[in-house]
Amino acid sequence: MDYGIKIWGNYDYLIEDGKVVINEGNRPALIDIVKDVREQGFKGPVLFRFPHIMKKHVNALFNKFNKYIKDYEYGGTFYSVFPLKVNQYPNFVTYLMKQTKGKRYGLEAGSKPELIIAMSYVNEGTPIVVNGFKDKEMISLGFISAKMGQNITLTIEGLNELETILEVAKEMGEPYPNIGLRIKLHSSGIGIWAKSGGINSKFGLTSVELVEALKLLKDSKMIDYLTMIHFHIGSQISEISPVKKALREAGNIYAELYKMGAKSLKRIDIGGGLAVEYSQHKLQHSINYTLDEYASDVVFLLKMIANNKNVPEPDIFIEAGRFVAASHAVLIVPVLELFSQEYNEQKLCLKEVNPPLIEELYELYNTINEKNAIEYLHDSLDHMESLLTLFDLGYIDLIDRSNTEVLVHLIIRKAINFLKNKNLSELRDIQDMIQERYLLNFSIFQSLPDYWGLGQTFPVMPLDKLDITPTRSASLWDITCDSDGEIAFDSTKPLFLHDVDLKKEDYFLGFFLVGAYQETLGMEHNLFTHPTEFVVTFDEEGNYVLNDVIEAQNILDILDDLDYDVKDIERRLKQRIEDSELIPDDEKKEVIGSLYLVLSENSYLKTVAGSRN
Amino acid sequence: MDYGIKIWGNYDYLIEDGKVVINEGNRPALIDIVKDVREQGFKGPVLFRFPHIMKKHVNALFNKFNKYIKDYEYGGTFYSVFPLKVNQYPNFVTYLMKQTKGKRYGLEAGSKPELIIAMSYVNEGTPIVVNGFKDKEMISLGFISAKMGQNITLTIEGLNELETILEVAKEMGEPYPNIGLRIKLHSSGIGIWAKSGGINSKFGLTSVELVEALKLLKDSKMIDYLTMIHFHIGSQISEISPVKKALREAGNIYAELYKMGAKSLKRIDIGGGLAVEYSQHKLQHSINYTLDEYASDVVFLLKMIANNKNVPEPDIFIEAGRFVAASHAVLIVPVLELFSQEYNEQKLCLKEVNPPLIEELYELYNTINEKNAIEYLHDSLDHMESLLTLFDLGYIDLIDRSNTEVLVHLIIRKAINFLKNKNLSELRDIQDMIQERYLLNFSIFQSLPDYWGLGQTFPVMPLDKLDITPTRSASLWDITCDSDGEIAFDSTKPLFLHDVDLKKEDYFLGFFLVGAYQETLGMEHNLFTHPTEFVVTFDEEGNYVLNDVIEAQNILDILDDLDYDVKDIERRLKQRIEDSELIPDDEKKEVIGSLYLVLSENSYLKTVAGSRN
Repeated sequence: MDYGIKIWGNYDYLIEDGKVVINEGNRPALIDIVKDVREQGFKGPVLFRFPHIMKKHVNALFNKFNKYIKDYEYGGTFYSVFPLKVNQYPNFVTYLMKQTKGKRYGLEAGSKPELIIAMSYVNEGTPIVVNGFKDKEMISLGFISAKMGQNITLTIEGLNELETILEVAKEMGEPYPNIGLRIKLHSSGIGIWAKSGGINSKFGLTSVELVEALKLLKDSKMIDYLTMIHFHIGSQISEISPVKKALREAGNIYAELYKMGAKSLKRIDIGGGLAVEYSQHKLQHSINYTLDEYASDVVFLLKMIANNKNVPEPDIFIEAGRFVAASHAVLIVPVLELFSQEYNEQKLCLKEVNPPLIEELYELYNTINEKNAIEYLHDSLDHMESLLTLFDLGYIDLIDRSNTEVLVHLIIRKAINFLKNKNLSELRDIQDMIQERYLLNFSIFQSLPDYWGLGQTFPVMPLDKLDITPTRSASLWDITCDSDGEIAFDSTKPLFLHDVDLKKEDYFLGFFLVGAYQETLGMEHNLFTHPTEFVVTFDEEGNYVLNDVIEAQNILDILDDLDYDVKDIERRLKQRIEDSELIPDDEKKEVIGSLYLVLSENSYLKTVAGSRN
Repeated sequence: MDYGIKIWGNYDYLIEDGKVVINEGNRPALIDIVKDVREQGFKGPVLFRFPHIMKKHVNALFNKFNKYIKDYEYGGTFYSVFPLKVNQYPNFVTYLMKQTKGKRYGLEAGSKPELIIAMSYVNEGTPIVVNGFKDKEMISLGFISAKMGQNITLTIEGLNELETILEVAKEMGEPYPNIGLRIKLHSSGIGIWAKSGGINSKFGLTSVELVEALKLLKDSKMIDYLTMIHFHIGSQISEISPVKKALREAGNIYAELYKMGAKSLKRIDIGGGLAVEYSQHKLQHSINYTLDEYASDVVFLLKMIANNKNVPEPDIFIEAGRFVAASHAVLIVPVLELFSQEYNEQKLCLKEVNPPLIEELYELYNTINEKNAIEYLHDSLDHMESLLTLFDLGYIDLIDRSNTEVLVHLIIRKAINFLKNKNLSELRDIQDMIQERYLLNFSIFQSLPDYWGLGQTFPVMPLDKLDITPTRSASLWDITCDSDGEIAFDSTKPLFLHDVDLKKEDYFLGFFLVGAYQETLGMEHNLFTHPTEFVVTFDEEGNYVLNDVIEAQNILDILDDLDYDVKDIERRLKQRIEDSELIPDDEKKEVIGSLYLVLSENSYLKTVAGSRN
């Protein structure tokens, strides 16, 4: 069982000796890094970041685009920027900048805090692109960046923004930032009036507005600052055809604007959308193209259009965020408990005289065989419904109800055993009913928000035991008080896990490809916060090194962030202990001590009966 | 146009003199409170909290339940707890506790930080209920709470938790917290094996486990601490029938456990789920029952079961969260800009010789009439598709494309005018295309996460102009760089807004009923954080008073929270300004000054051309 690692793993992660290993240095097993971290006292979920994976993906971008630029003798240059909204965390951004030094690799910002991050950490000379709706203050920041000597482009989303730029230009004087125009494409998405992209899109200028913008820039003698057009057709693009359609449209707009007098126009920013393969299952690939095909199509189409219209071939900017960030981070989650419903006959408490339907269930259980299995199964489910109704109406008691549950489970188990080679759809439905529930020490809302919001699944697998066939159909529960905090067993993309005795051994699951969006969209449901994180690098001998740990917030910090007066909380709690007549005076200090211990720890679970820690 | 305020407003909010007013004190208009706040210099979105509304809803719960307890001569007492996961913010929780002093109204916690909040702020003697998965540390906190003399119940979700309680009891000694058992219902949800509730539910004990738990408690002589059973069938329950079904099942389990020796068992906690009417449109009510019916059914059914089984009538606990919290908060959002596509003939730049299809479009535009409107409209849309294809293939230029956009828009406008009384489905589709886009200074991800995740809509309306008929079909855009940050016009529940000139006047929208879940689930997409909030109370003369402002985080604080080294950021930015040869030395201080001004403000938009501020 390789959990589809060849589909989604991209050779960043491999399986060796039954363990997931990092394909770098001495190929350490993830489980060994986890053990190392836990021995240092870090409990709960942990997030590992691998800067070498960031670098690998950025390199892939440059290699492919530069290959086709060379192959097609393309006149423009390839640049790339990382859209900060995909991951603004310092242990990501600062390492990304270190890993890409010397490349034409910059940052994209969509809000004032993101622009501050970009201005602070972008590598010298590399581009900053500013998208999204901008106020005068954000535009002024862009001018400050230009004054710092940074290579910044403000792409405008509406004519009002352009007017504000002209206003700020007058107030602040030269040097000015470069100006880009975001274009509203007709062609994007599926169908001409589709939501994402298209004429109803939230972002960008129509042709009418482009013509007006051009006039405005000419009239104010700012046309030389118009250097870029930008478009974006959506995130996680699964097919190549809308990309090609958008490129044709945008390429022609570029050429036309150039011909209409925008002679400094030399860059097309083709936005993000380069997809990541999240699928763990062979028949459910998320993408129908390769990076090779994508790069080739972009370069080829832009060359063709520029040549047709006799304009210079533009530089190509890409804003691939997910592609660069997703795979750099792995979330490691300890399994806390298995909630089995492994009822055996010993759980039966049959009475001397049982309700007739229970007697019948018992008879079904004793006489079920391969031939009658389906029929008896149906009968038993019917009986159960009846018995539960009898209970609700007060005719049978809790022992009878308990016996019902045990007998129906035993019958289901027998039926599955008899039918297991027949692949009946009913059998599949029943198998769903007898999944093992794995309680995981994490919050889906905090760590996999796109699962909650968009139903996006992420590759998940145990870190070891991969040489043992897993047999349990698994549902995953998080520790929030929310029934949505569950990844239910899905027979169309089944997850099987191992049967483990947590009293004797640990069992960890890794969620992979969680480095894009999942951190910044994380929700603090039930006040579970960002997990403890480590940056994992490799020394010259190929050994892994743990750097820059950022611990999950402790409880007092969490409350402080919510704007509670934590001094008031401490005072109130201490006071209640001091005042209590139920605590002997000589024990009060100890009670306060154990209270403070909890306050100083994070909100995830720690000591759980039934697991080793 | 009352925006359905009679459906969802619950007399908390009324319309008077064309404005939304608060139905309390001198009935201030929301718009006047907003102006007051903005004159004090607070810009961007603001959240107002109204403690009197919290109180009103809690009172409604107690009044209704106590009425039926009296009417039916019910032997138990009514209690209520607020589930903190619904809103943990201090300006909510501390005011809620103040407003409910003297009532049997406590707090429910589902995680360690929530339990700390409950232990710190619960009113003396009122109950604390602890649900969800618990580690030994959280259970120990429960024992500390009991030692403080608090009225605390730990409801267990699995047998392991019960074992841990027994273990901690030995270690920490008396007094012990009360113990509750969460039961896994068969009946909940739709169909017996449904996900929410039901036998596959994430939470609670099966009958088999209940019997085991009872035995464990008896064996360890802790049976006297078993005081409560708890169930929860889901959030925002739209129909009453599953509630009644669950009550029958739970009531019988209570009675059976009592008869099996749990003689201290005296409370049934019926969980949350009491729904809120979010609908703004008459035919789309979310709920089919009233609080009256709900309370009556609960009391009646429990009485009937207890009497049938000859056991004492239990106290009733309810965990209504949404019902209490939703309506206390209003989010006020300034409209920044209207993105019209109001093309008039002046935008046409027809050439001496135009492509034939453009000439045809122009002809359609000039000759469209009531009779041919639909046909000509179809023709024009066809022509547009063709012209856009011609552009993509390089056959026509940007001016032609711009003319296409203008002409098609003009034709659509004319067609709508001709057809407006005919209610054709096509017309409705076209009206969708010509919505006005209102750019709003907020983030849907931060302030309405349930809209993104669950498609939950919230009542929205302008704060004034309610005596003027709004004519614009409206789409709402937020300021994030995400195409999901949009509430698109939906003709099945249409939103119409006013045509306003933002250069001359402000226009604010209120999103109502946002006090439940939306704050704690808020996502920091693009680093937009919780908006500035105020608590609005009323003095003895009925005038409103603004209290406890908590400002939206400034940019440096946001970056600090992400664990950036903000000193490093400040140093880097200053250094870049100091080192820049593009800034004259005598201007450097000013540039640093304007940079610091931005760093000290929040991330929402401030000065926008085309609106007054």
